[in-house]
Amino acid sequence: MAGQKVIITGVPGAGKTTVINASMEKIAAERIPYQYINFGSFMFEVAVADGLIQDRDQMRKLDRTAQKHLQKLIAEKLAAIDGNIIIDTHASVKTPSGYLAGLPAWVITTIMPDVIILVETDNDQILVRRLSDESRVRDVEGAKAIAEHQEMNRAFAASCAMLTGCTIKIIVNADSLLDKAVEELTATLR
Amino acid sequence: MAGQKVIITGVPGAGKTTVINASMEKIAAERIPYQYINFGSFMFEVAVADGLIQDRDQMRKLDRTAQKHLQKLIAEKLAAIDGNIIIDTHASVKTPSGYLAGLPAWVITTIMPDVIILVETDNDQILVRRLSDESRVRDVEGAKAIAEHQEMNRAFAASCAMLTGCTIKIIVNADSLLDKAVEELTATLR
Amino acid sequence: MAGQKVIITGVPGAGKTTVINASMEKIAAERIPYQYINFGSFMFEVAVADGLIQDRDQMRKLDRTAQKHLQKLIAEKLAAIDGNIIIDTHASVKTPSGYLAGLPAWVITTIMPDVIILVETDNDQILVRRLSDESRVRDVEGAKAIAEHQEMNRAFAASCAMLTGCTIKIIVNADSLLDKAVEELTATLR
Repeated sequence: MAGQKVIITGVPGAGKTTVINASMEKIAAERIPYQYINFGSFMFEVAVADGLIQDRDQMRKLDRTAQKHLQKLIAEKLAAIDGNIIIDTHASVKTPSGYLAGLPAWVITTIMPDVIILVETDNDQILVRRLSDESRVRDVEGAKAIAEHQEMNRAFAASCAMLTGCTIKIIVNADSLLDKAVEELTATLR
Repeated sequence: MAGQKVIITGVPGAGKTTVINASMEKIAAERIPYQYINFGSFMFEVAVADGLIQDRDQMRKLDRTAQKHLQKLIAEKLAAIDGNIIIDTHASVKTPSGYLAGLPAWVITTIMPDVIILVETDNDQILVRRLSDESRVRDVEGAKAIAEHQEMNRAFAASCAMLTGCTIKIIVNADSLLDKAVEELTATLR
Repeated sequence: MAGQKVIITGVPGAGKTTVINASMEKIAAERIPYQYINFGSFMFEVAVADGLIQDRDQMRKLDRTAQKHLQKLIAEKLAAIDGNIIIDTHASVKTPSGYLAGLPAWVITTIMPDVIILVETDNDQILVRRLSDESRVRDVEGAKAIAEHQEMNRAFAASCAMLTGCTIKIIVNADSLLDKAVEELTATLR
């Protein structure tokens, strides 16, 4: 399909949403068309529309085969979209059983993105942001656990790049340097 | 096959065996059936039974094609086991030619584990343990080399997760916090 | 094909060329035959010979499908070479869109190398070398960016090892310890 496929990821607290929103505004002002898709929400909608599930709880309870089937279906739909899209998801999700690949081989080789963006922040800064974020209930982890998650995400992303040939763009979203992060994302989307 | 397939790994000195043993006792007390398999020993037994080799020395001397064939055979046998199994192996082995994947693509995509556990310890603590371990002849490496090995193992594990959809659970086995590590492993096995 | 296939990589400033040259001299003195191939130059020559392009500028402008096709062609030619070869390339290249895999899946599973060598140096030392290197125009990056690139290269290499079964040898080329790095590379080539 024509158009650029950009996947954007970041651990909770890295400020992914803030960077995306600011960048999408700039891109819109420049009249560059981009469709924004949240991977999780899109998967939920498709699963409901297909009668696979009725609510979010059921999605979590799908067995491994059903989940894989659903992921592949979503990836095909994303691959078929014409024009520029930015897909908001996670390189890996931290579950009680450990890190789960957000973009396993059967998903990433179907989407075949142009670039995967990792929005990162210094571990200490993420910790402070999470502690002061009262709007969401987030597990409070130490800075060490955040560093571990960000390191794992780099490894997951490298594996994606090996399988597809996409590039891996690391955008640092440091405190009081949001403009820089937004400009970097905007330049990648252009 | 039914049952949970857990692969457990850790660099020499991380205390993998201690954590496994303590956890298997707990699991047994809870009457949760688990079969323990050491990947290397299992491979050796199968190779001898199949007449491929007669002793351990010959296993090391198998050429690349023969080794790959044998690994695939083992992986198929492990995949066919019914019930819960815990497979004790290495994410990577340090050889004179460098790090060798313990779970290459053809092994991991055949076993299709549910979770790969990395038992890790602070590099300095591993170093102290190795230095004081007189029962085994181990190459004495610096803390930097241990950090390098543990970092590589995370990358190897991430690649496994990308190819199979398994989770990667990092369990830190810190000095005087063995109970915590054992509890984390036990919770994963339950 | 018979012979050992060695791929050697390293970020700009790691001293890869210096280590290769010194090691190739030693290997030649020991009458061990090795063919040296620079991946990029080889790709350019083949592309010109096949009439795909006329100059280097055109190579950069090839679209993704054409580039992948060309990479696969090169990998097949490298796989077909008889005897020992050392392939000089990059685990990943830093582009404006992010890190691009130098050895994506379709390349590495075709070459099927025996070992991938990562020539690494302390980030600070690389920085000093780059700053004092007046012969080349290199982007001046901070030590943090160099650390990031070296970390990503380890992840890319681990993914290569997972797909092919090759080993990953990290050779540290520290200031005033060049002899050690050369000896390590020479031992791997022998």
